[in-house]
Amino acid sequence: MLAEIITIGDELLIGQVIDTNSAFIAKALNGIGVSIYQITSVQDDKSHILKAFKDAESRVDIVIITGGLGPTKDDITKKTIAEYFNDTLVLNQSVLENIEHIWKKYIKQTLLQVNKDQALVPSKSKVLMNINGTAPGMWIEKDEKVFISLPGVPYEMKALISTEVLPRLTSKYHLPFILHRTLLVYGIGESTLANNIESWEDSLPDFVKLAYLPSLGRVRLRLSAKGFDKQKIEVEIQKQIDNVIPIIKDNFVGIEDEEGEPEQVIANQLTKLRKTLAVAESCTGGKIAERFTTHAGASKYFKGSIVSYATETKINVLGVAEDLIETHSVVSSQVAEAMAHQARSIFNADFAIATTGNAGPTKGDSDAEVGTVFIAIAHKNGVYSEKFMLGNHRTKVINKAVNKAFELLLKEIFKN
Amino acid sequence: MLAEIITIGDELLIGQVIDTNSAFIAKALNGIGVSIYQITSVQDDKSHILKAFKDAESRVDIVIITGGLGPTKDDITKKTIAEYFNDTLVLNQSVLENIEHIWKKYIKQTLLQVNKDQALVPSKSKVLMNINGTAPGMWIEKDEKVFISLPGVPYEMKALISTEVLPRLTSKYHLPFILHRTLLVYGIGESTLANNIESWEDSLPDFVKLAYLPSLGRVRLRLSAKGFDKQKIEVEIQKQIDNVIPIIKDNFVGIEDEEGEPEQVIANQLTKLRKTLAVAESCTGGKIAERFTTHAGASKYFKGSIVSYATETKINVLGVAEDLIETHSVVSSQVAEAMAHQARSIFNADFAIATTGNAGPTKGDSDAEVGTVFIAIAHKNGVYSEKFMLGNHRTKVINKAVNKAFELLLKEIFKN
Repeated sequence: MLAEIITIGDELLIGQVIDTNSAFIAKALNGIGVSIYQITSVQDDKSHILKAFKDAESRVDIVIITGGLGPTKDDITKKTIAEYFNDTLVLNQSVLENIEHIWKKYIKQTLLQVNKDQALVPSKSKVLMNINGTAPGMWIEKDEKVFISLPGVPYEMKALISTEVLPRLTSKYHLPFILHRTLLVYGIGESTLANNIESWEDSLPDFVKLAYLPSLGRVRLRLSAKGFDKQKIEVEIQKQIDNVIPIIKDNFVGIEDEEGEPEQVIANQLTKLRKTLAVAESCTGGKIAERFTTHAGASKYFKGSIVSYATETKINVLGVAEDLIETHSVVSSQVAEAMAHQARSIFNADFAIATTGNAGPTKGDSDAEVGTVFIAIAHKNGVYSEKFMLGNHRTKVINKAVNKAFELLLKEIFKN
Repeated sequence: MLAEIITIGDELLIGQVIDTNSAFIAKALNGIGVSIYQITSVQDDKSHILKAFKDAESRVDIVIITGGLGPTKDDITKKTIAEYFNDTLVLNQSVLENIEHIWKKYIKQTLLQVNKDQALVPSKSKVLMNINGTAPGMWIEKDEKVFISLPGVPYEMKALISTEVLPRLTSKYHLPFILHRTLLVYGIGESTLANNIESWEDSLPDFVKLAYLPSLGRVRLRLSAKGFDKQKIEVEIQKQIDNVIPIIKDNFVGIEDEEGEPEQVIANQLTKLRKTLAVAESCTGGKIAERFTTHAGASKYFKGSIVSYATETKINVLGVAEDLIETHSVVSSQVAEAMAHQARSIFNADFAIATTGNAGPTKGDSDAEVGTVFIAIAHKNGVYSEKFMLGNHRTKVINKAVNKAFELLLKEIFKN
C-alpha cells in the first residue's frame, strides 16, 4: 500500500516555512505499514493542485493532503477538491457546531461568515472532526483510491492523524508490518563505519535495507524491513543488530527507535538511576537545557541550567573565580571544569555539563579560534573535560557541541 | 524562470528526517528572482529518481537536486544522474585533491577507495567545488534546462548555494525582482484580521499577492510581488504596508523580512538602546535563551539565563522566597514576578523575562491546570506580569509561551 503526501502553500515554496508535517505523517503511516512513495509541495494555485492530485492518483493508493483549509482568501484547497471530484460543497451541521463551540469557548469574538463557511465540505466526503480547530478533515474515496485532506496547522493535523486517519486506514486495508531500527554511532565517519561493517552489510538478507545518516558528530545507521510476518522481521533485525554492535564497539551509543534522541537516552538512564543533572552553558546558549526540557518528564532528573553567556555572568552568577578566567582565558578547560563544578554544586545535582567556547562568526570575549569548544562533565568522582574544534559555522558549532556534550555525559554516566 | 527542488533520501519518506534544505534553497533562489514551482521528495530508488527528473524537466527550467552523494552503498544519485544524461563518470583531479586535503586535515584516518570515488563526476558536468565536504556539487546543462546536484548535508549545501549556484544563475539568466514583506501580527486570529483589513485587501493591485500564515499566538501577513521594475515593486509594497499598519494598530509588532524573527526585533532594539537582558525560565526550559543565542551578536545584550526547572532551583539558585511559593503556588503571578526581579538583579540586566507554568502532559509541582503560564517582565520601573492559558499540548504550550514572552517584552521595551 503506497501513499503520497501533498503539502499545499506558497509559504513552503518561498522558503518561509519548513514542511514539518510531512515527516510526522510519514512516520505515523509507516507505523501502520503504509509506505510513502513521494512527498510533493505545491503552490496555492488551482491548476497546480489539480495536476498534483492527478499525478498522485496515478502513482499511489492513498493521497494525504495538508494545508489551504483556513478561512482566508488564499485558502483554496477545499474548493479545488470539490472541483477535482466534480462535487459541490454542502454545510455540515456537526462541523458548524464545533466551530461555534470553539468560538464561544476560546475566541470570544463575533463569528464571521468566513468562519461559518469552514463548515462547508464536499458532499461526497466523510468529515474527520477536528476538535482542535475550525477546519475539518475530509476523507473521499474514488474507485480504489482514498484522498484525505487535513488542516496544515501541525497540532490539528497530528491529532486527526492519530484519532481518525490511522484507525480508518488500518480497518480498511490489510497492511504489512514495517520495522525501522536506528543505531546511534558517535566518533567515526560514515565511510570508516561502512568500511568496518562491510562484510556484515554484504551478508544482510535481501529484505533488510541499510541506510547511513551522517550528521554533526554522529552517524545514524538504519535497518529497515517490511513484510506480513511480524515475528520473522523482528527476530531478523534483532539478530543483525546483535551481530553489528560488537563490530562498532565503543562508538555505539544507543538505539534511536527505542529511546529516541540522545537526550532521551540520557533522560532514561538518569531516571532509572535516580540521578539528577544540571547545566552551565556558555556557547550552547540554552540549547542543552532546551533539548532536555522539550520532552515530558524532565522534572524527574533535570535540576536546571545557568546560561552564562557573558563572562561577568560566569563570575557573578556561576561563581567561577575571576583570576582563573584571567589566567587561562574564558575559553579553556580550566573554566569549563570550574563551570561544571559550580553548576553541580549550585543546583545540588549528581551530574553537571558545562560548555564554553566560541561559536563565531567572530572572536568574542577570548582569543580562542572560532569553533573552539571546551566541554566538561562533573560528577561525584571529579570533573572530566575535553577540547573540540568544531569548524567555523555558528549553528553547526552549537549543534555539534550539544551532541558532543551528550556523548561525553553518556560515557560518564556509564562509568560513574 | 521556474525551478523545482528534488530531495532524495528514504529518511525523508519514512519521516526520520525533516527536509529543511528545501526551505533554505527556496528562499535563496527567491532572493535572486527564481520562483520555486514545486518541491518533490523521492526515495533512494533509481527508477523513481529518473522519473522525478523527467517530470521536473517537463515542468521547469532549473532542477535542484540534494542528497544521495555520500560514499556509502545507499547513495545512488550520481550514478543515476549519469544514466539520465547518458553519460559516464570520470575522475576529477581537483575534487580528489580537495578530498585528500580534508582527509589529511580533519579525518586523519586511512583514505578509502569509496572516498576517492567521490571524485568521480559525470563527464558533461561542471564541478561546483565543495570545500566543506567530500561530495562535489555538479552543474549539468541539457538543451535550455539546468540540473544542479548538491550534497544533502545542510551546511555543505548552503555554502555551495551561496558561493556557486546563485552567482552562476544570476550571470546566466536575466531574472526578475521578487519581494516578500511579512508583517508580524500578535493577539488576533486570522479571520478577525482578514475581516478588519478586508477593504484594504480588496483594493490591492493585481501584482501584489497576500497570504495569511497563522501559527501559535500570531499571524504572519505576507505581501509578495514579482517583476522587472524593482523600484515600482518596492514603492507599491511599502505604500500598502503604510496603509495597513494603522488598521492593524497595536497588534502589529514588526516586519519579519527586515529584522527577522521576534527575538531579532528585540535584539536590534536592545542593541540600539544599549540595554541588556536576562532570563529566568521554568516551563520554557531554556528555549528563550536558545532563541536569542542562536543569532550571532547576542553577547551585546544577552547576559544569561537561569533555567530553574525544579522548584528547589527557584529557591536555592534564583533566590525566590520559599514562603512566597508556599503561599501563592509555584505557578503564580507572584512567583513569575519574583523570578523576573531576581533574574534582573542577579544578572545586573536592564530587562528580565521570567516564565513559570505547567506545559503538561500532567500536573507538576503545582496544582495549576495544564497550559497555565505566567510571564513576567522586570525593568527599572517595576515588574509586569500576565497569565495565559495556552492549551494542553506540551510543545505548543512551550512555543506559545516563548512567543508571548517576546510580545510582552517588546511592549515593555517600547514603553520603558
